[in-house]
Amino acid sequence: MDPHTLHTPKADVTLYLVTDSTGLREEDFLTRVEKACRGGITLLQLREKERSGREYFRLALKVKEISSRYHIPLLIDDRVDIALAAGADGVHVGQSDLPVKEARRLLGPDKIVGATAKTVPQALEAEAAGADYLGVGAIFPTTTKVVTVLTAVETLNAICQAVGIPVAAIGGLNKGNLSILENSPISGVSVVSAIMKQADPENAARELKKAVCALPSRRHLS
Amino acid sequence: MDPHTLHTPKADVTLYLVTDSTGLREEDFLTRVEKACRGGITLLQLREKERSGREYFRLALKVKEISSRYHIPLLIDDRVDIALAAGADGVHVGQSDLPVKEARRLLGPDKIVGATAKTVPQALEAEAAGADYLGVGAIFPTTTKVVTVLTAVETLNAICQAVGIPVAAIGGLNKGNLSILENSPISGVSVVSAIMKQADPENAARELKKAVCALPSRRHLS
Repeated sequence: MDPHTLHTPKADVTLYLVTDSTGLREEDFLTRVEKACRGGITLLQLREKERSGREYFRLALKVKEISSRYHIPLLIDDRVDIALAAGADGVHVGQSDLPVKEARRLLGPDKIVGATAKTVPQALEAEAAGADYLGVGAIFPTTTKVVTVLTAVETLNAICQAVGIPVAAIGGLNKGNLSILENSPISGVSVVSAIMKQADPENAARELKKAVCALPSRRHLS
Repeated sequence: MDPHTLHTPKADVTLYLVTDSTGLREEDFLTRVEKACRGGITLLQLREKERSGREYFRLALKVKEISSRYHIPLLIDDRVDIALAAGADGVHVGQSDLPVKEARRLLGPDKIVGATAKTVPQALEAEAAGADYLGVGAIFPTTTKVVTVLTAVETLNAICQAVGIPVAAIGGLNKGNLSILENSPISGVSVVSAIMKQADPENAARELKKAVCALPSRRHLS
């Protein structure tokens, strides 16, 4: 696809929350998800790699009930079957999950399929296979080294230039370090801790969204 | 369903092989699966809990290619999405996987949905939700005690009486201990090691099938 012919995207990745329920009581987890919705997240991904299929499904139904009330699309990490069973809005697949092409085929043209890409070739392949957006990173990996971060941002920018679908930067981003992306033509950021682990997830989401929207090079795709 | 009104079942569980690729080179694993097919298994389940979605899918395609040549239905453990993507013939779901009802809804009426049941209520629930057969056990759990085995066989028999769908006995069964099921109205047995871990999987399957077919109380449902 010509990257200059940008269509209205199916997924608004401006502030994309990926959940992490590890160590949280379910009630607390769901409350935090709801607060994040109130704070203005634009997309939500349920990511529960450790749970059994039945538990994942059960939790997906509960999260869907919340996200629907706020009209925020819910994606399921990896499991297309759970996305279908729970009536979610789509899936996010990584490089070790079902291929984008298969996810698209199972979900049909209207559901959202997002993909992780770490390189330009991976990004182009995912776009060609039908991905609606890309998650690209990690910008700040667990063991942060300045040189790693700069390389990550360079790759991120190259991917943004190469594809015509929205790109969300992922990996250790928060309000405090967002300025590293001020020259990146990303469409948004994807976070876990910067919202889920804050004392006030609603306010954290609101503040982070403001900061993302203020990024001067952001691609307004929604 | 009236257990006396037995319809021709969709799944023939006479000799039902569940795979285990742990510790095997892929080529060796696939060769063993093919030998089992030649030896007369009637149903095949790919069970790869440890693999990533992409690896599971990739292996499912390879196994499907083999099983199709022998006209043996291939089921995928747990992952309905991988079953759909790989064109498998159905799924097997345990008590911690997607519920039978959801699996059936996603797969439609023609695919095979099998379920694990450990009690009569679980068996009746699975049958009502649309399961085509039940796997019941473990007859010989890892820590074998005679009293456990007898209780397991009692439960197995009660389940066979309660449902109208085929029941396969599972758990540590082999040619040597099969006689414990001589009064059980099972339709077949499900094994892993008794075929996959034998020097000659083809012959092991052939011999085991003969022994299963000779069980005097077996329900001939196919």
